Amino acid sequence: MVNSPVGFKDVEDAAETLRGVAHATPVLTSQTLNRELGLTAFLKCENFQRTGAFKFRGAYNALSRLSAEERQRGVLAYSSGNHAQAVALAGRILGIKVRIVMPSDAPAVKLDATRGYGADVVLYDHEKVAREEVGAKLQQEDGSVLIPPFNHPHVIAGQGTAALELFQEVGRLDALFVCVGGGGLISGCGIAAREMSPGCQVVGVEPEAGDDATRSFHSGTLQVAARPKTIADGARTTSLGDLTFPLIMEVVDDMLAVTDQELIDAMEFTWGRMKIITEPTGVLGLAGLFRRHGEFRGKRVGVIISGGNVELSRFARLTLG
Amino acid sequence: MVNSPVGFKDVEDAAETLRGVAHATPVLTSQTLNRELGLTAFLKCENFQRTGAFKFRGAYNALSRLSAEERQRGVLAYSSGNHAQAVALAGRILGIKVRIVMPSDAPAVKLDATRGYGADVVLYDHEKVAREEVGAKLQQEDGSVLIPPFNHPHVIAGQGTAALELFQEVGRLDALFVCVGGGGLISGCGIAAREMSPGCQVVGVEPEAGDDATRSFHSGTLQVAARPKTIADGARTTSLGDLTFPLIMEVVDDMLAVTDQELIDAMEFTWGRMKIITEPTGVLGLAGLFRRHGEFRGKRVGVIISGGNVELSRFARLTLG
Repeated sequence: MVNSPVGFKDVEDAAETLRGVAHATPVLTSQTLNRELGLTAFLKCENFQRTGAFKFRGAYNALSRLSAEERQRGVLAYSSGNHAQAVALAGRILGIKVRIVMPSDAPAVKLDATRGYGADVVLYDHEKVAREEVGAKLQQEDGSVLIPPFNHPHVIAGQGTAALELFQEVGRLDALFVCVGGGGLISGCGIAAREMSPGCQVVGVEPEAGDDATRSFHSGTLQVAARPKTIADGARTTSLGDLTFPLIMEVVDDMLAVTDQELIDAMEFTWGRMKIITEPTGVLGLAGLFRRHGEFRGKRVGVIISGGNVELSRFARLTLG
Repeated sequence: MVNSPVGFKDVEDAAETLRGVAHATPVLTSQTLNRELGLTAFLKCENFQRTGAFKFRGAYNALSRLSAEERQRGVLAYSSGNHAQAVALAGRILGIKVRIVMPSDAPAVKLDATRGYGADVVLYDHEKVAREEVGAKLQQEDGSVLIPPFNHPHVIAGQGTAALELFQEVGRLDALFVCVGGGGLISGCGIAAREMSPGCQVVGVEPEAGDDATRSFHSGTLQVAARPKTIADGARTTSLGDLTFPLIMEVVDDMLAVTDQELIDAMEFTWGRMKIITEPTGVLGLAGLFRRHGEFRGKRVGVIISGGNVELSRFARLTLG
């Protein structure tokens, strides 16, 4: 990859940075799953990652690479989800002040979780003001550094360590299914796959209601979706970024979109049969494999389970009717 | 241990028998848990075992050690829970005919799961006839071999492999918390602990509503409980067995009983924070550690999470009110 903003060496460097800080999450297999799909699946379980999602990898890697002067100024993120908690925890570990801009109607449980990791939460009324406006004002005040959720070289490199660890543990794979929101995870994982397992089909999966990345991939032109209505709250991004889109065109082999019902089915499988808690966004890759398994009969297939942060009552509502 | 019906060598032999058949289940740790309790906890996750509970270890070990002639006759078990599924799967793998005697009002999901593993389910009306009567009649007909759920040397040795694997993975421990129903699991685990980690405090935990084992342990005389009313359905046994009681007196250091509310709290912790599905009986050990953690400050403590077979709707009812 010539002149790419992120290469395999960056993923290796991120792994070094994350050693002993991020969890080397377990890879689970299920004989029931393998028998039903007629292949051998390896689930890299980032729901067991610190803060309950892969996001900690990218956030910690990015914060670690700030200069002493930048650290002094503190960091800022917009997120009401997993990125917020990831940046908050990374900041606490590294002793960097973190402010998270969140809408004032965000669920109390998310505000509490983010504050629980030691971040200052700055609330704004999203009907009256854009979060970028709020953020710009804060940055002007104290020069804090914005940590974007996916469109950043150090974030992408950090996320790639999830796939790096998977290949290190199980060896070469014929395919790897990865969820796609803004494309940070799949960009990093694709870079790792190209190097660690040449020929591995890297397949991105996103929710049907927001299939902008799939359309971008197939058309070769960046597409934008209206804010997607999907239960996969981690994949409600409206488009890929100017870093992740070209990376995806280079390291991803195929993309598909799945329905919310397919996500619920995949969650039920992981909860009921594999005994792991997953969130809707977390099973995008598995739902994609359920859809496409016929193409990988007898093959070795990796799946990134990206997170497990779901309110239990919400899942109960989703699956118990 | 002189003249003991089960020794460490039997646990080692069981481990050899189970190699490549049972899962070497993962040991999980949680920084949140360690910080909250002020110790280092290692959770041996038998909820990831085949059939979703440790019971597969004992059942497979017992069936493997039948003579060719006994295998020909087939096996029989009384159970509407994890033992049923464990014997059923072990029989399917080993090509041994399995019949499970279950009450006709057992939940359909349990009947289906047991049949799903290939067993014949024999139903009886528990208001009209004792299951032992049904079983005795079946045994008379075809000479099938009864596989008891806990009071059997090969079952005990098989269950002990859970602790054996834990010590092999994490080394010596200061304490080990284990759930107690009929005492098969803790007998085997205690035998492993005595050999692999001398000085390790082996602590049994049972539900308060059926604290017969705790009373037996403290009085030195076998106590019997009326059928306990507890959400821990795997620990509704009325007493220890004539094999497990003396073993427990020898290899267990302490016993305590916890309330159903403590089990619900422990389940909520494992589901919400650790992202693993556990059943009420499965978290007895963890609930015991929550109660007693003050005694183990700064120590290394093992916990057997014994299973994860719970209807999701049931948990929702328990925790969401």
